Amino acid sequence: MSSTIQTAIVGVTGYAGAELARLLLHHPLLKGAPPIFAGRVNPEDAARGGVPLAEIHPQLAGHRVANLKLEPFSWDLFVSRGVDVLFLATPHEQSREWVPEALSHGIRVIDLSGAWRLTDAANRAVYNFDDDGTELAAEVQAQAVYGMPELHRAAIASARLVANPGCYATSVILALKPLVAAGLVDLDHGIVADSKSGVSGAGKAPTPKTHFMYAADNLSAYGVFTHRHTGELLEQIGVDKSQIVFTPHLLPIPRGILSTIYVHFHQPQTVAAISRVYHEFFASSPMVRLYDKALPQIQHSVHTSYADIGFQLAPDGRRAVIVSCLDNLLKGASSQAVQNLNVMQGWHEAEGLE
Amino acid sequence: MSSTIQTAIVGVTGYAGAELARLLLHHPLLKGAPPIFAGRVNPEDAARGGVPLAEIHPQLAGHRVANLKLEPFSWDLFVSRGVDVLFLATPHEQSREWVPEALSHGIRVIDLSGAWRLTDAANRAVYNFDDDGTELAAEVQAQAVYGMPELHRAAIASARLVANPGCYATSVILALKPLVAAGLVDLDHGIVADSKSGVSGAGKAPTPKTHFMYAADNLSAYGVFTHRHTGELLEQIGVDKSQIVFTPHLLPIPRGILSTIYVHFHQPQTVAAISRVYHEFFASSPMVRLYDKALPQIQHSVHTSYADIGFQLAPDGRRAVIVSCLDNLLKGASSQAVQNLNVMQGWHEAEGLE
Amino acid sequence: MSSTIQTAIVGVTGYAGAELARLLLHHPLLKGAPPIFAGRVNPEDAARGGVPLAEIHPQLAGHRVANLKLEPFSWDLFVSRGVDVLFLATPHEQSREWVPEALSHGIRVIDLSGAWRLTDAANRAVYNFDDDGTELAAEVQAQAVYGMPELHRAAIASARLVANPGCYATSVILALKPLVAAGLVDLDHGIVADSKSGVSGAGKAPTPKTHFMYAADNLSAYGVFTHRHTGELLEQIGVDKSQIVFTPHLLPIPRGILSTIYVHFHQPQTVAAISRVYHEFFASSPMVRLYDKALPQIQHSVHTSYADIGFQLAPDGRRAVIVSCLDNLLKGASSQAVQNLNVMQGWHEAEGLE
Amino acid sequence: MSSTIQTAIVGVTGYAGAELARLLLHHPLLKGAPPIFAGRVNPEDAARGGVPLAEIHPQLAGHRVANLKLEPFSWDLFVSRGVDVLFLATPHEQSREWVPEALSHGIRVIDLSGAWRLTDAANRAVYNFDDDGTELAAEVQAQAVYGMPELHRAAIASARLVANPGCYATSVILALKPLVAAGLVDLDHGIVADSKSGVSGAGKAPTPKTHFMYAADNLSAYGVFTHRHTGELLEQIGVDKSQIVFTPHLLPIPRGILSTIYVHFHQPQTVAAISRVYHEFFASSPMVRLYDKALPQIQHSVHTSYADIGFQLAPDGRRAVIVSCLDNLLKGASSQAVQNLNVMQGWHEAEGLE
Repeated sequence: MSSTIQTAIVGVTGYAGAELARLLLHHPLLKGAPPIFAGRVNPEDAARGGVPLAEIHPQLAGHRVANLKLEPFSWDLFVSRGVDVLFLATPHEQSREWVPEALSHGIRVIDLSGAWRLTDAANRAVYNFDDDGTELAAEVQAQAVYGMPELHRAAIASARLVANPGCYATSVILALKPLVAAGLVDLDHGIVADSKSGVSGAGKAPTPKTHFMYAADNLSAYGVFTHRHTGELLEQIGVDKSQIVFTPHLLPIPRGILSTIYVHFHQPQTVAAISRVYHEFFASSPMVRLYDKALPQIQHSVHTSYADIGFQLAPDGRRAVIVSCLDNLLKGASSQAVQNLNVMQGWHEAEGLE
Repeated sequence: MSSTIQTAIVGVTGYAGAELARLLLHHPLLKGAPPIFAGRVNPEDAARGGVPLAEIHPQLAGHRVANLKLEPFSWDLFVSRGVDVLFLATPHEQSREWVPEALSHGIRVIDLSGAWRLTDAANRAVYNFDDDGTELAAEVQAQAVYGMPELHRAAIASARLVANPGCYATSVILALKPLVAAGLVDLDHGIVADSKSGVSGAGKAPTPKTHFMYAADNLSAYGVFTHRHTGELLEQIGVDKSQIVFTPHLLPIPRGILSTIYVHFHQPQTVAAISRVYHEFFASSPMVRLYDKALPQIQHSVHTSYADIGFQLAPDGRRAVIVSCLDNLLKGASSQAVQNLNVMQGWHEAEGLE
Repeated sequence: MSSTIQTAIVGVTGYAGAELARLLLHHPLLKGAPPIFAGRVNPEDAARGGVPLAEIHPQLAGHRVANLKLEPFSWDLFVSRGVDVLFLATPHEQSREWVPEALSHGIRVIDLSGAWRLTDAANRAVYNFDDDGTELAAEVQAQAVYGMPELHRAAIASARLVANPGCYATSVILALKPLVAAGLVDLDHGIVADSKSGVSGAGKAPTPKTHFMYAADNLSAYGVFTHRHTGELLEQIGVDKSQIVFTPHLLPIPRGILSTIYVHFHQPQTVAAISRVYHEFFASSPMVRLYDKALPQIQHSVHTSYADIGFQLAPDGRRAVIVSCLDNLLKGASSQAVQNLNVMQGWHEAEGLE
Repeated sequence: MSSTIQTAIVGVTGYAGAELARLLLHHPLLKGAPPIFAGRVNPEDAARGGVPLAEIHPQLAGHRVANLKLEPFSWDLFVSRGVDVLFLATPHEQSREWVPEALSHGIRVIDLSGAWRLTDAANRAVYNFDDDGTELAAEVQAQAVYGMPELHRAAIASARLVANPGCYATSVILALKPLVAAGLVDLDHGIVADSKSGVSGAGKAPTPKTHFMYAADNLSAYGVFTHRHTGELLEQIGVDKSQIVFTPHLLPIPRGILSTIYVHFHQPQTVAAISRVYHEFFASSPMVRLYDKALPQIQHSVHTSYADIGFQLAPDGRRAVIVSCLDNLLKGASSQAVQNLNVMQGWHEAEGLE
């Protein structure tokens, strides 16, 4: 166990940023070293040393955060305060710009945006990055490790840049990877991933689609055949576009994702066999909970740092419905980022997450 | 019963406008004469004759509205098509401007905004109307009748301008007026009106407070001692500012208002006596439902055009809690507007509203 | 147009029953002949002639229902009052018992339960009907017509027993039937129907799963590979069990179903071709609304009597995602029952439903 | 700081019990000594040593609780395992019976029910306790301390029986006590406490009122002039029945209480003066957060152990609206119980609660 490190968060004003702040503030191995919060601060607030965290997120107010403030962003701030690991909970365009700078200052980065998750340029196209194709971008991308410890634990441990996975992607990849890796799934038969997410996944900006009157008492599908997380599915599961359909839906709840996933097997399977594949795959993964009897539900996953996975096998043994649940702000964003921090520091992977 | 008239709606894109459209389209005495919908239309849409109503409000789509469109607003449009009654479901600044013009074209108006509801300049101050104090404004205001048929039926019948009441105001005034008018309430003891409204009352603009993540799983008080509807309470109930406190709250539901109202009586009362006061006051009012046993709840009032009122008397007979419920988009806006139309036309007051 | 008929409802206390009452009370061709409401009534209430409808459903209270009551059930009641058509919104065991009796009294029946929907004994097995296999049951079943006018209009017109479809089944069948009937769908590739329903679909009985704390802020899959509506899908779409997976989910909303349906085509298709298939299939069906540009959402279908259908074609033209929405209490139950009544009476199919 | 103690919980299957389990499992000073869970266990489960906690509350599943079980209740269990403090999250009838037994076994008790909160027999009458008036009951009641550390810190520290306050009561008492104790409030003018609570406050039993269809999209007042928590208000604030009206409402959210409280002052006040009264009263109370600028909202209080209080003064300085928020399962139940444990043990009052 290494001695305490200094962390910093950019993007604490957002939903994932708030959860990240909460997790780092309560992390047992970061006691006495609260994160530095940096971002855009108007001149008036800058004059009083920044905006108190308790004003930004009243729910976090309390003795422990009494003196913490959102300070004006600058590299000097991070360098002078000796930041070891920087969390970026920023829009992807911002992360494209700041990650190279952070690395050049010798700061390790855990980036929660979609900026550096995709190795295949074709998959990245959907983001329309200005700098795609430049040498610098290629160099940075080459250093990026996809931050899903269950798949890339060793690489994360030594990574200088961790690209924290998308929320939908986490939920689908964890459910499918064990079965696909075991060679059980008939990919040509086609996989369906029908995902449903709470509204916090749509971000804090007030838009027609995040209006209460749009989301409440409603359900809507969107991004059919075009959602940005599709590339992560293809690269991490190892399938091509013709082999999977991914449909996200907007649920009338604040947080949580449930993915219902449909697969065909090459050969008839038994419940025991499928169960064994999952248990072996996740044997060393403390943040995945496998359901052996029931199916997971969103209510049991939200406000936890776990991904919950269960399945139901068809009587013919040839088809299965897999259900995967997580909190999009936690295992789908912030707690997975802390999990990555734990792995990078050689700490216990679940430290501060239970 | 008069022959069919031509109506028009400005502001159909909003929540109250959509309900108003639905009501007028199904009004038995407006069969064959659907309302004209007018508003801001971009050039492309103007070129195709306007925006189909079914694109604006997919829930209204169907045979009956197949050819209805939102057309570019102009006085010519209304004059050439012989509009008799114009409904304005527009922001109050807009209504301040358009109502005088409509009247000058000989068109009667039912205005759903707060523009012309208040006769006392001090109460109007909260709106900061540009034109307040001008001769024209004074002249128009003098013609305006507060559009609550339960209180002003006769005046509405001959009105050229009806100022449709605010949603909160409707809910509180209907509950209090009978008791105050009967002289039972000890005003110096102070009335409390604690109101809770669904999010549609906050309008369609996406703002931080209408974001699903702000409103859902939440309750918040706002506008304490300052809400704009206070003036309507004072003028219509006949109390002064020191005699009533009105506190609105934002409920995590799409529609509906429940007001919990607290009064002290001069003398101890019986349930029968209070009940009689209400029944007599509303004897000719088909859109008020009195609860004799239970208290009304939002679930039974929404999607209806009724105001529902019930009360509980303290064992000492000196205090009562009155509960008043309505649908803020219907009796709190659109159905009350149609009720006013019915009264203006000499039709049965509940026509098209059950 | 035939002259007015007398209807009766058993099961008005439930959610579908309440909607059915509302629809029949406002049906233009049933004016002056409100339905008779019959059911279990305790002796006290029987002594006062039954329970006022307005006490059972306060939202329905108003002038029009002032004298309507839930009366004690008996065949005498129906016979003496000349009931022509009986609506049963009762549990399926009850419908198994009462339908033969109603038919024997010469009363036509629209049964909203699952009692008589399935012609294949294997599919019916899931219900465990006591009387299955008896001669009487076989005779009654032989008369039953599956009450989906879009598929069986002619048979319904002359039916004495209409088995009103299940809510999930309606949503999936209407979306799939046109494509399957046109021979476009590669059934061996497997169809996925991922359906999500509001809580009213689970009925009025308070159970752990209908508790607010279970359903709110949650989503859960249930009945995977075993849901009772599966038999309706198989029989009406014309597929076998190995060709479709149907997964229902419980949504944290009061009403509405959205089904997301995944198909593979034998040959690459165009949007225009698929669209044409739907438009032709539903050319004479006023209660289906086809979405050509966007996808339907629950918010636009609830509180309407329509089924809304849209689709998105994959860039390869080989796969499509179809989205189907309806109100489970209306097109999924009560309004479909009224639609069947209209067809049985030779009235316009949409009468009283817009 | 004392050495670790052994705790036990009866009633872990309920909502408050689950939160209490979570808090005690993560309490820094109870590490290595998880609570004993005891209750009704069927014979089959007893045979396997009890029901795994992770089966009862899947959200709590994880490494830390892997071996924890709900064991069959018996006094032997508690005595043999050396239980120091017993938490009862049980119905009040159960607590009436078990508290005397626990005390006779030398076990200190924190009782979350309403069994021992009221010292005045008249106030207790609403509970209809079988044993009220017996010598034993009087003796036990005499030992009970009302478990609100902000009011009774010293007495709690040495208490053997702590009667943990009601959720509504906590929210209203904390808001009113400082002002009433300072003699500012004109009690004869009457206080109004209009409270709104999430559904978890209604308990886990499935009833018509906890059905999703009853609670969702609804708001209802209940228990007007009769709610059981009224006695706590009277005794703890020090007012009589004629001086306060308390109205609870059922909010369509899982958790959280917001109370809007209306007072008249004897003399005009300033914001600064009122603010000073609150800050002085709660100077040593870490679990109360005072809002100086805005008003608290439920969203910022839920999932925290704090009570949040703010106010708005009328322009005339004579009236104030106080808003008080808390999580009914935490500061309204479980975290207040842990706060009491901390005080009883001489630990820091906020230990394990931030």
